[in-house]
Amino acid sequence: MSVAIDSRLYLVTDRSRLDGRDFLGVVEDAIRGGVTMLQLREKDCSSREFYELGLALRELTRRYRVPFWINDRLDIALAVGADGLHIGQSDLPAAVAKKLLPPGMLLGVSAKTVEQAIAAEQAGADCLGSGAVYPTTTKVITRTLALDELRRIKAAVKIPVVAIGGITADNLAPLMACGIDGVAVVSAIMASPQPGAAARTILAAVDRHRQF
Amino acid sequence: MSVAIDSRLYLVTDRSRLDGRDFLGVVEDAIRGGVTMLQLREKDCSSREFYELGLALRELTRRYRVPFWINDRLDIALAVGADGLHIGQSDLPAAVAKKLLPPGMLLGVSAKTVEQAIAAEQAGADCLGSGAVYPTTTKVITRTLALDELRRIKAAVKIPVVAIGGITADNLAPLMACGIDGVAVVSAIMASPQPGAAARTILAAVDRHRQF
Repeated sequence: MSVAIDSRLYLVTDRSRLDGRDFLGVVEDAIRGGVTMLQLREKDCSSREFYELGLALRELTRRYRVPFWINDRLDIALAVGADGLHIGQSDLPAAVAKKLLPPGMLLGVSAKTVEQAIAAEQAGADCLGSGAVYPTTTKVITRTLALDELRRIKAAVKIPVVAIGGITADNLAPLMACGIDGVAVVSAIMASPQPGAAARTILAAVDRHRQF
Repeated sequence: MSVAIDSRLYLVTDRSRLDGRDFLGVVEDAIRGGVTMLQLREKDCSSREFYELGLALRELTRRYRVPFWINDRLDIALAVGADGLHIGQSDLPAAVAKKLLPPGMLLGVSAKTVEQAIAAEQAGADCLGSGAVYPTTTKVITRTLALDELRRIKAAVKIPVVAIGGITADNLAPLMACGIDGVAVVSAIMASPQPGAAARTILAAVDRHRQF
């Protein structure tokens, strides 16, 4: 399938960064600031809680017409009627997920190498997330993805590629120079005292440095 | 839907009880001993690992014609072609799961009260698991399910009811006297040095004490 995805600013949630603030309030502020896609990523909660968070964000993203993705859990994506499922290399294989997704539901895949990127596109992925491009506090990572590899990944596939990992408005220029379509951020927005303003600043920087 | 399920001896897996032994070997030995249904329950592994374990057990259970259930993860159940999905009260709501399951795939639900049991049956459940009837080391439980409540649950629904929690060949008589259809066990088989012999002994006790 081929869908025009506006992947310039992809917010990936992390409730551990809220410091007591309201989750939906932070996400809504970020969306108003210019987030173009949203992904709910939850690793340490029950399926019921994941589902209920998903329903709440589905309602919010529908209201703002922002594409809504679920991380890892295909069942939760189906249950809440998400626009897409994003899977990593330790989740369901992309080809298996693609077969189970209803027509029209998007598939995003994490790809750290050109080989993974090509395999994901062949399996039917609609979008790739590549990283971590910079050191990040969100995940334990073994090594960062070199800019050269990011450039090769983008060149190897036709689908949109977003970079992820430690990205801020100040360090995204060299990433955008690789020709990628956008950036995925967690901390730079979720941990910001002003999520909306943070989103606005990052989106402006993305637009300033896009190659096309 | 109405399917004749042989729920007399329902083995629920727990890899933490293997003490170095081979997972598939233990499960196969138990199946040869008389396990009538198998559930893969995995709480601390990646989706990929859950999927791969599911594929392996799907192959094994198909070979022995034993109905195969997946715990919690509807996506994994779909991906491996399980016979059924078993969900607890903190997983997807039963009615939501029922709607997402393909026709013919069974739905099992954990029910600790008569109200939960009736709600699950109304939502389309094909089988109930009720417990913990005895103290167990498998889960942290707040209180055990009284025998009276187990009897009321069985009387309140038409679908099969199995008890779970700390069940052995020696303590199942009072449970079976409640009119239930079978027992679900984890430790009594998974932690046994002779899983096949353990299954045989428990199944014989179930048959000796069944009320119908």
